Amino acid sequence: MDTGGAAWLLAATALVLLMTPGLALFYGGLVREKGVISMMMMSFGALALVAVLWVLYGWSMTAVDGSSFFQFAGDPLTGLGMSGLADDNVGMLGSAYGATFAIITVALISGAIADRARFGSWLLFAGIFATVVYFPVAAWVWGGGWIMQLGTALGFSGVEVIDYAGGTAVHINAGAAALALALVLGRRQGFDRSLSAPHSVPLVLIGTAILWFGWFGFNAGAEGNGNLVDSVVGLIMVNTIVAPAAGILGWLAFERLRGKKPTAIGAASGAIAGLVGITPACADIAPGWALLLGLVCGVAANYACDLKWLAKFDDSLDVVGIHLTAGLIGSLWPGLFAHETGIINGGGPEQFIVQVIASVAVLVYSFVVSFIIGTLIQKTVGFRITSEEEIAGVDESVHGERAYARAA
Amino acid sequence: MDTGGAAWLLAATALVLLMTPGLALFYGGLVREKGVISMMMMSFGALALVAVLWVLYGWSMTAVDGSSFFQFAGDPLTGLGMSGLADDNVGMLGSAYGATFAIITVALISGAIADRARFGSWLLFAGIFATVVYFPVAAWVWGGGWIMQLGTALGFSGVEVIDYAGGTAVHINAGAAALALALVLGRRQGFDRSLSAPHSVPLVLIGTAILWFGWFGFNAGAEGNGNLVDSVVGLIMVNTIVAPAAGILGWLAFERLRGKKPTAIGAASGAIAGLVGITPACADIAPGWALLLGLVCGVAANYACDLKWLAKFDDSLDVVGIHLTAGLIGSLWPGLFAHETGIINGGGPEQFIVQVIASVAVLVYSFVVSFIIGTLIQKTVGFRITSEEEIAGVDESVHGERAYARAA
Amino acid sequence: MDTGGAAWLLAATALVLLMTPGLALFYGGLVREKGVISMMMMSFGALALVAVLWVLYGWSMTAVDGSSFFQFAGDPLTGLGMSGLADDNVGMLGSAYGATFAIITVALISGAIADRARFGSWLLFAGIFATVVYFPVAAWVWGGGWIMQLGTALGFSGVEVIDYAGGTAVHINAGAAALALALVLGRRQGFDRSLSAPHSVPLVLIGTAILWFGWFGFNAGAEGNGNLVDSVVGLIMVNTIVAPAAGILGWLAFERLRGKKPTAIGAASGAIAGLVGITPACADIAPGWALLLGLVCGVAANYACDLKWLAKFDDSLDVVGIHLTAGLIGSLWPGLFAHETGIINGGGPEQFIVQVIASVAVLVYSFVVSFIIGTLIQKTVGFRITSEEEIAGVDESVHGERAYARAA
Repeated sequence: MDTGGAAWLLAATALVLLMTPGLALFYGGLVREKGVISMMMMSFGALALVAVLWVLYGWSMTAVDGSSFFQFAGDPLTGLGMSGLADDNVGMLGSAYGATFAIITVALISGAIADRARFGSWLLFAGIFATVVYFPVAAWVWGGGWIMQLGTALGFSGVEVIDYAGGTAVHINAGAAALALALVLGRRQGFDRSLSAPHSVPLVLIGTAILWFGWFGFNAGAEGNGNLVDSVVGLIMVNTIVAPAAGILGWLAFERLRGKKPTAIGAASGAIAGLVGITPACADIAPGWALLLGLVCGVAANYACDLKWLAKFDDSLDVVGIHLTAGLIGSLWPGLFAHETGIINGGGPEQFIVQVIASVAVLVYSFVVSFIIGTLIQKTVGFRITSEEEIAGVDESVHGERAYARAA
Repeated sequence: MDTGGAAWLLAATALVLLMTPGLALFYGGLVREKGVISMMMMSFGALALVAVLWVLYGWSMTAVDGSSFFQFAGDPLTGLGMSGLADDNVGMLGSAYGATFAIITVALISGAIADRARFGSWLLFAGIFATVVYFPVAAWVWGGGWIMQLGTALGFSGVEVIDYAGGTAVHINAGAAALALALVLGRRQGFDRSLSAPHSVPLVLIGTAILWFGWFGFNAGAEGNGNLVDSVVGLIMVNTIVAPAAGILGWLAFERLRGKKPTAIGAASGAIAGLVGITPACADIAPGWALLLGLVCGVAANYACDLKWLAKFDDSLDVVGIHLTAGLIGSLWPGLFAHETGIINGGGPEQFIVQVIASVAVLVYSFVVSFIIGTLIQKTVGFRITSEEEIAGVDESVHGERAYARAA
Repeated sequence: MDTGGAAWLLAATALVLLMTPGLALFYGGLVREKGVISMMMMSFGALALVAVLWVLYGWSMTAVDGSSFFQFAGDPLTGLGMSGLADDNVGMLGSAYGATFAIITVALISGAIADRARFGSWLLFAGIFATVVYFPVAAWVWGGGWIMQLGTALGFSGVEVIDYAGGTAVHINAGAAALALALVLGRRQGFDRSLSAPHSVPLVLIGTAILWFGWFGFNAGAEGNGNLVDSVVGLIMVNTIVAPAAGILGWLAFERLRGKKPTAIGAASGAIAGLVGITPACADIAPGWALLLGLVCGVAANYACDLKWLAKFDDSLDVVGIHLTAGLIGSLWPGLFAHETGIINGGGPEQFIVQVIASVAVLVYSFVVSFIIGTLIQKTVGFRITSEEEIAGVDESVHGERAYARAA
């Protein structure tokens, strides 16, 4: 790492840390007035708790020693409290950057359980999920674990899983856990589309703006570990502009085809879908393919967000519809379009195969473990608030606070 | 470019991209509740469409080969889909940065047509304007075109047009187009000062904060192409702090002289005026002159914002009053105060002459072409919503969405 | 400085400048609807005025020549209008960065006088405070003045005051001045806890998000003056994540022990307390101690915020409870935990002694001088609005503007 790379990694760390408060605002704007505090506090609570766990033992778990294919995670005790990094500035820089990814992944899940979660139980889930799901999966995908070794293990010459910034580790992971919690907690009372009227569209767009802004750090930050001039960081930036832009157009065009009007919530959702989609492949596909990917994600996420009404699971703020859907598309995309190894760009099926394995593995692991954790919490201390508390509103009953105190 | 420059250019790109959502909030806060969605969607729509056009052919059009004085723009086809940049990281970095300028310029125009534009027609305008106005003008000002060659063409030794960050290409350009559209679409029903009560001052200030923040990237980003230590980037930063600060003081002091109270909207407007004013000259004048420039822009923009009431054109959110006014002042300022070439600082009239020519040329070109595009759209598919739709509110009629759903 | 350091210093300058508008939103959200404009304008007004004074003579005052222990401040005239920096890009970069610290320090004070200050009188205070308190104190702490020389002057070998990013110069300074102004202006009418219902929790969290984000620049920016790779900038980043995270947990846990529910305002307050606490020591303590510091600050600030109700001074938005309290804890912390020189980490009492002297000196100086300035303003032109104006609301009476114009 040189000083230019360090400078960008510093800025990127600040950018990605900001994404979680941005998510709090995005999610907070999407709910009704009586659930705003709960929604925002699940993000801020995850931020606080996961940051502390990261320093205590999380960072230590996210790298394996690479001695075998089947290592679950790094030893949490070797780097306890980051004691080993005292004189390793570059390691400390990477650790700060890595913390922000752990935080946002956990916070994303909360979108599935709007209006009905106990705050303490959410924190309990967040801490356990981070420990047994996120930290290990991060080790698999980025820390030398089995997903990083998969292509070689299968004998695929020159092909390894492409997940540059977290299609599997972040978005499929969060989306699958969100689905699990939506099932564990069950539907809100009076579950229908009337629950989907956001109390503040401007707040949603503030959140969207912050998320997009932070995503430049999310997608391009790791390039700071090498030489920024001789890198693909410019490509990543262009892709992080054009994919969400196309996501907006795709979403709005599809809405129009279905006879609906162009909504701001649709634009925001399309942008996020495009950003999620480009995340794993941002360093490996040309801008034209990123544009197409954004369009596809905008359309597909729009379509997928209707599934919860058909299947009647209450993924309240569409973590499945957007993050899982676009996360899967984006994670498979390099199998088709990656430079040299994608099927469309001169490669064989190997790239696609490893992308499928990694995606499905993370999806299944995250879903199953999250379902178990959530169920255990629900059966013991309780996860969902009571029916009376829900009618009174989770903000009032759990937090004793109202989002707004308006003049009479 | 070295890696430090690349790091700053990356951060600057994220900063300037953020400005357009920031503008959406700034504009969104300034209108009444029934026009918030429309206002914000014009910015987000411009962001989405112009980003896609930029990748497709816009970037390609913003540089001429320099073979003659009269080239209109670069060939849109040579760089189609940025195909030529696959292995050019530095070129790709510059392209990402350049995209953000195209986007914000188009979005700025929408301030003139609050409460009464059809969204699809706005997108049509945005796409055509970007193609036939912004991309060529950017080629003239920064891509080797006639404005860059003007001093030499006139035989002015050592004098070329100074427009470091976009006084002509961005602010005069957007302001002139805004005036054209305000005339094409006509006044809102019940046009008077009561329309100017912003529905949310905090939202306006959030937008202002984001715009100022992003402006550091806007004004200073291009220094990343050279050596940051041996540059004038520190001067640019100081000027980008002091000019808007003085713009606030100038606006508020002038308000007080007129017997009015100091408003937050005034402070925000003064800051933006100062930022617009310093944009073209930020790299070429000393902080003391930047301070004076900010004061002048704050006072002048305040005064200019009253013109629309006298001349009865409905430039709803004062794109003319602020961006055109301060853009003109800032673009002429180097003619007086530029280091060595300004009249006050030891130069002859040459600098002033080229500044006038460039400013007037962009103003006239942008106004005329925008007027023609707008009129063609209005006469064919229609640009303005119907009277009934306007009374119901553009958010409801065009977007089918309300900005706020408040608890009863 | 190399170009990577410059890149980071540029980003950090933009980040810290953004903190003051962020503070405007944080403070603006905390008050009732009829005081929002006043609250936000005190921050924006301080931003405008202090930036201009900084360029005129403030920068010049923040460095002494080091010839004696008793120099009060640098000569305001030598660098008038930054004339001496014309060709010194590195100096100009530092000056831009330094301006942002002066601005936020002054703006912080306004939290103590919500709902009852005249805007012009606030500006008058802000200008005088900056001139006779902030600029000199900055010279003492960072510009070669007596606080920087204290360890040597006392004959403490290898021990100097540790105040990396402004525990004394910024937070103790602002907190002490806030206490003085709260006493000078007196309590609001009907002073009780009902005044503490924030009109918009989301606005408070937007402000918190921006403040935390900007704090990375605040704490880590100065590392850009050296080699970023061979520095402690990674440590600073980790500490700037974990201390506020622990601050949130500390605050919420303490609330729970007291039988209260976990509020978003509590989370925001805990985060700010942790950020303030880590500010002076961010470069000098290991992440584990930063975590502990955050916890302590969260608990202590929570407790301290109750003092105003007992002692009946109206520090309206808890500048004393949070900034002075956590500023003191953080400034003393290196005396205990600093690497090698802290008592717990192998040092003698020397570090603690110099930390106490510096903290108390700045506290007393700032309090006394602020009290005098405030009293003089109150006795001459008046500082507090009239009783009638206060009942009508400061926004209406002083600014003639309402924060929100809602649809009927």
